[in-house]
Amino acid sequence: MSLFLQVVSVSEAIAEVRNVAVRCGDEPVPLIEALHRILAEDVHADVDIPGFTRSVVDGFAVRSADTTGSSDAIPSMFPFSGRVTMGASAVTSLRSGECIYVPTGGILPEGADAVVMIEHTEQIGKEVLVKKPAAQGENVLFFNEDFSKGEPVVQRGKRLSAQDIGVLAAAGCRDVPVVRMPRIGILSTGNELVPVTVRPEAGQVRDVNSYVIASMVKEWGCLPEIYGIIIDERETLSEVIRKATSECDAVLISGGSSKDDRDIVAAIIAEQGRVLVHGIAIAPGKPTIIGQCSGTPVIGLPGHPASAFIVLIAIVRHLITAMTGETSGNVRTLQATLGQNVSSSKGREDYVRVAVRDGIATPLFGKSGLLNTLVKSTGIVRIPAESEGLETGTLIEVIVW
Amino acid sequence: MSLFLQVVSVSEAIAEVRNVAVRCGDEPVPLIEALHRILAEDVHADVDIPGFTRSVVDGFAVRSADTTGSSDAIPSMFPFSGRVTMGASAVTSLRSGECIYVPTGGILPEGADAVVMIEHTEQIGKEVLVKKPAAQGENVLFFNEDFSKGEPVVQRGKRLSAQDIGVLAAAGCRDVPVVRMPRIGILSTGNELVPVTVRPEAGQVRDVNSYVIASMVKEWGCLPEIYGIIIDERETLSEVIRKATSECDAVLISGGSSKDDRDIVAAIIAEQGRVLVHGIAIAPGKPTIIGQCSGTPVIGLPGHPASAFIVLIAIVRHLITAMTGETSGNVRTLQATLGQNVSSSKGREDYVRVAVRDGIATPLFGKSGLLNTLVKSTGIVRIPAESEGLETGTLIEVIVW
Repeated sequence: MSLFLQVVSVSEAIAEVRNVAVRCGDEPVPLIEALHRILAEDVHADVDIPGFTRSVVDGFAVRSADTTGSSDAIPSMFPFSGRVTMGASAVTSLRSGECIYVPTGGILPEGADAVVMIEHTEQIGKEVLVKKPAAQGENVLFFNEDFSKGEPVVQRGKRLSAQDIGVLAAAGCRDVPVVRMPRIGILSTGNELVPVTVRPEAGQVRDVNSYVIASMVKEWGCLPEIYGIIIDERETLSEVIRKATSECDAVLISGGSSKDDRDIVAAIIAEQGRVLVHGIAIAPGKPTIIGQCSGTPVIGLPGHPASAFIVLIAIVRHLITAMTGETSGNVRTLQATLGQNVSSSKGREDYVRVAVRDGIATPLFGKSGLLNTLVKSTGIVRIPAESEGLETGTLIEVIVW
Repeated sequence: MSLFLQVVSVSEAIAEVRNVAVRCGDEPVPLIEALHRILAEDVHADVDIPGFTRSVVDGFAVRSADTTGSSDAIPSMFPFSGRVTMGASAVTSLRSGECIYVPTGGILPEGADAVVMIEHTEQIGKEVLVKKPAAQGENVLFFNEDFSKGEPVVQRGKRLSAQDIGVLAAAGCRDVPVVRMPRIGILSTGNELVPVTVRPEAGQVRDVNSYVIASMVKEWGCLPEIYGIIIDERETLSEVIRKATSECDAVLISGGSSKDDRDIVAAIIAEQGRVLVHGIAIAPGKPTIIGQCSGTPVIGLPGHPASAFIVLIAIVRHLITAMTGETSGNVRTLQATLGQNVSSSKGREDYVRVAVRDGIATPLFGKSGLLNTLVKSTGIVRIPAESEGLETGTLIEVIVW
């Protein structure tokens, strides 16, 4: 192994993880459980939505032309000609000069082309006064105006939101075809690591990464499978990696933070499969490994939680989206104005943590190794490899976390 | 019941839901399951983090003063004086002029105040050439620099992110005190409603609201309890509302979209408890009911899914945050520039759907009753009651959904 890493660019690294990703299969889930799942196929409306022309208010169905010139001072007068009953399929019909009461959601009578809100009317016995003209189509939702039968309502690759679930309900989608949740094996290496339950002695730190990584991939819609802290001993580590790659869709190994440890991880991956990348031109996160064992992608993440987190966002999320086919992107961004100059090394993608307030992104300088800036920051700003930094006032895109 | 609603302002409505909300109790959950839960108590670090001064790179620990003036051309020469072993508690010590190899995360030897990255050194037998000066503290994370023992690391009321989980791990928090997930009863009324599995006839629509509401409250960290479609018949509805309010922390009744249906819902709430609000100055969403039965908050939402959705965002989420004590806000916002004029009625809070692209928010005009604008929009813009509209170019805050 060479002392210095053969670094590749971030875009090359992303291409490699996309390349080794295996697309997960599909499964049907009940609609009520489909929130945040990735839609596996386009879903089409099985009916016209709405299936009939309906009123969107409580009011009186009219021919709009009959209301021309109506006002509070000079209302138009209509004979009260009946009511539409909710949920009833009978279509009433209306002649010029008549009005029929329609509750919100009720079928618009045939011959009517607008509904006057009840607030703009007054019923006096068998007469209805209309005090405001109605435009054609006012307060009416027309047959199939929302979706036509057969039209795709939600596209494959979409991570389903509450609104998507609503539209799928309207489209009659009881069981939703979604992508199986990728099972992600997580293991931590490093002789300095102790479990969270243990009070660390000098030289020891708690295994933060298993928790951060498991939570992050859970947020991305994966099932984390934690293999725990594995000592930096080749036999043991090799055995656990073999087990994890056989049981999971991808494996994330964190730690091996020192060069020696990283070399052990890389050597084991090479032995069981192949190492595609060992070192990425990214800061923090340079000593990242991308490999493949028995067809399963294996990523070696930096040991420091803050660095591992950046690599999760910058690289691993592309692995996950390639596995799920998610098109909506599993990252949130916001635009902000940079509040301070940020310098950067050319030839390396720098990720700088920022706190965003009132549209101004303030870089949180200080050591990238600190955990506290992870929780104090709103997200990160990417400084492209070809840039030497960003100036105050630049409009930037913040990857929110 | 009066024909016209006695509308209250949105802020009064929010104050009412906050007022009727009952704070949910707490429970401990294992750290690995705490993602997205609301922290019930401040968590303090049980140890100093880090517990010892450590290197953040692989390199040579030195006294920074000894490296002054080092360069590629004229490197400083140090005798190689040993290595620090990962995870070992033994503290080595270093005298002026010496250097000791330290792996990433290793304990900094006593007497050293900086680490030179291995990339800027060259080892030749028993000698190490240092080719770059190190500043004091360079590549070093000091004892308790991240968090001091006893310091709060995450505050109560925070909805826990993956990073928070990481910091809690570092702080030794194995079981996390979180707020119990509110159980939200959901029922739909309306004789026009049919289940998703049924193909609607003329006059009928599918029950979209149960799905939208259940998914939305799930996203907010609640447990939805679906009571299904209840016919607009007073006895039956009354019985189900009684059952739901006894079993849940809050009950959301949607539908009763027409005035008659709303009146039935309001009458039942009044019978079993009290109606606090019947009508809010909000568009869409005016016919919203806020009440309380046997100490349980009951909200009557508009029947149309798009209107119900706005009321969920504008009103119900404040009920939920009051129940959980969430301080981080259960809504995401982004700033954008309005791409078109939007008019609004004074005295009413209008919520306009917008699609945001490249920082420009384009209003999706068209009927608020349409479902398709719900899925095409990025979120909503609130137009305050005192405003008559917003002009093109205004910097606005979009509530993202």
